[in-house]
Amino acid sequence: MARKFQVAGLGNAIVDVLAPVSEQFLLDHSIAKGTMTLIDEHRSATLLAALEDTREVAGGSAGNTMAGFASLGGKGVYFGKVKQDRLGEAFRASMRDTGVHFTTPAATGGPSTALCVIAVTPDEQRSMSTYLGAAREFSAADVNEDEIAASEILYIEGYMWDAPSAKAACIAAMDIAHKAGTQVAFAVSDPFLIGRYGEEFRAMLDTIDILFANEEEAKALFEVDSFDEVFQAARRHKGIKALTRSEKGCVIAGNGEVHVIDAWPVERVLDTTGAGDQFAAGFLYGLTQGQGLAASGRLAGLCAAEVISHFGARPEVSLKKLATDEGLI
Amino acid sequence: MARKFQVAGLGNAIVDVLAPVSEQFLLDHSIAKGTMTLIDEHRSATLLAALEDTREVAGGSAGNTMAGFASLGGKGVYFGKVKQDRLGEAFRASMRDTGVHFTTPAATGGPSTALCVIAVTPDEQRSMSTYLGAAREFSAADVNEDEIAASEILYIEGYMWDAPSAKAACIAAMDIAHKAGTQVAFAVSDPFLIGRYGEEFRAMLDTIDILFANEEEAKALFEVDSFDEVFQAARRHKGIKALTRSEKGCVIAGNGEVHVIDAWPVERVLDTTGAGDQFAAGFLYGLTQGQGLAASGRLAGLCAAEVISHFGARPEVSLKKLATDEGLI
Repeated sequence: MARKFQVAGLGNAIVDVLAPVSEQFLLDHSIAKGTMTLIDEHRSATLLAALEDTREVAGGSAGNTMAGFASLGGKGVYFGKVKQDRLGEAFRASMRDTGVHFTTPAATGGPSTALCVIAVTPDEQRSMSTYLGAAREFSAADVNEDEIAASEILYIEGYMWDAPSAKAACIAAMDIAHKAGTQVAFAVSDPFLIGRYGEEFRAMLDTIDILFANEEEAKALFEVDSFDEVFQAARRHKGIKALTRSEKGCVIAGNGEVHVIDAWPVERVLDTTGAGDQFAAGFLYGLTQGQGLAASGRLAGLCAAEVISHFGARPEVSLKKLATDEGLI
Repeated sequence: MARKFQVAGLGNAIVDVLAPVSEQFLLDHSIAKGTMTLIDEHRSATLLAALEDTREVAGGSAGNTMAGFASLGGKGVYFGKVKQDRLGEAFRASMRDTGVHFTTPAATGGPSTALCVIAVTPDEQRSMSTYLGAAREFSAADVNEDEIAASEILYIEGYMWDAPSAKAACIAAMDIAHKAGTQVAFAVSDPFLIGRYGEEFRAMLDTIDILFANEEEAKALFEVDSFDEVFQAARRHKGIKALTRSEKGCVIAGNGEVHVIDAWPVERVLDTTGAGDQFAAGFLYGLTQGQGLAASGRLAGLCAAEVISHFGARPEVSLKKLATDEGLI
């Protein structure tokens, strides 16, 4: 019986604020080039005030995934916390434009909507300053039980563990999913999270139906040094493991199957931001269409290839058309 | 109960004749640069007469594997046909030097010992002209039943299928191995062989305990287009499959296990000749030492890495010392 939504995504609702800047701007504002730094509200206000010609686009890891999922033609719903402010409205409008259902109530007080200032220098390098703001305030009250139960898969980004309230909400959401027969997908998101929440993540492994991790994240998660050890450790847990390896492609294991899938060829890699997010979008879409693990992995690779071929973490073309043209859906 | 030999190798006994030549030499003798061409006895005699400063070294795919196996400290025996001539003696001496037992009687008449003229131009390119000669005459009478029964594994190179007598001898040897409880390992050797003997190779698959194939060979063997399809097809057959992928490493499947092993890092690839041969040497050595598939695959990768780091198809250092230093044996 088909459910209303195929995937419910849960993550930090962040607006990416892209702005072309000079090298001098980075120096003036002490921004470390090419890296991501967490900043506070005051500093984010200062940066925004200093920027001209900004372009705002809804971001966030699970948000990017849901945008890709919708671009493939999937029916998705997103949970994430914004504030009732200009950027919050921008996030909501951007999600609406992509066709993702998004009804998490905006906060009327407290910190501003999360934003990531992406300063793009003339050499096309991206220097990111992230203010988590309202996204950190996501709480169990924001978990829409009906919408989770109306989804085939609940997809959660690991970044949420950095805020106690958001983490508790994720655990509550997973519990609801299990009771509703909704599959739980989890993305490790960042190897640094393992240092802080490795034990918690490891304890969750057998409650996750679909695990997404890149090689570095998986090595940290399973506390091993080589990819083969990652793979052996992952196979010991139930569920599907989608292990991504950048240009080496991915390995998908689950249901007694193992697939070794090459990366989709890319003429020129311009910006790897969003590769993991779009990989997840393609993989989840394949699964919800009843495709096997191998076909879903290939579709995932295509979606990742699209997003790394241009700047920005969301697809620039209709992934549905792209995948149809390639004969994958 | 330990057997006298760990591996018996069966292949075309070829002497590599390396010679530095000028670009003009290639033109004068119509040698296509960078390729391997089969030549007849007359032409091989002409080439040898024209060359100065030649260096002879026993070659042949299985011969190279056995040399590597011995370099690791393994006890091996080799079957292959040479003629009782100068190059035949050179092949025998070279095998003796590597510590491989080799008693196949030399032919007293018929074609000369097989040789591969490797013309090395100043740009370090290698242009090969191979005369198969006596190697093609290997026959069932040369299959030493006692030595096969005294070996843990019989390793056969697919190149043998190109000579009817040698092919029949290989099939007889496999039959002896099965009866003696000796495992059968088979290397596909070359994708072009599949065009000629694909059906025969496919019919043999379930009688092979350890299959070696690189990606291109395996795609041809299983008649598929992607590595993942190769891997799925290979898993349907019994036995261990060692599928090599050049810089992508290898995938080993068997005994209900799957291992995805990265290539051993190489600072500079100089000459990939012998990579597959030495991979097989390392893998077989690992297995005969009771190592698991993953450890054997890593050792195989190390041996392949050593041989591609220099010119020539056989190790230049003690693989036993190298592997010990790396903590692999």
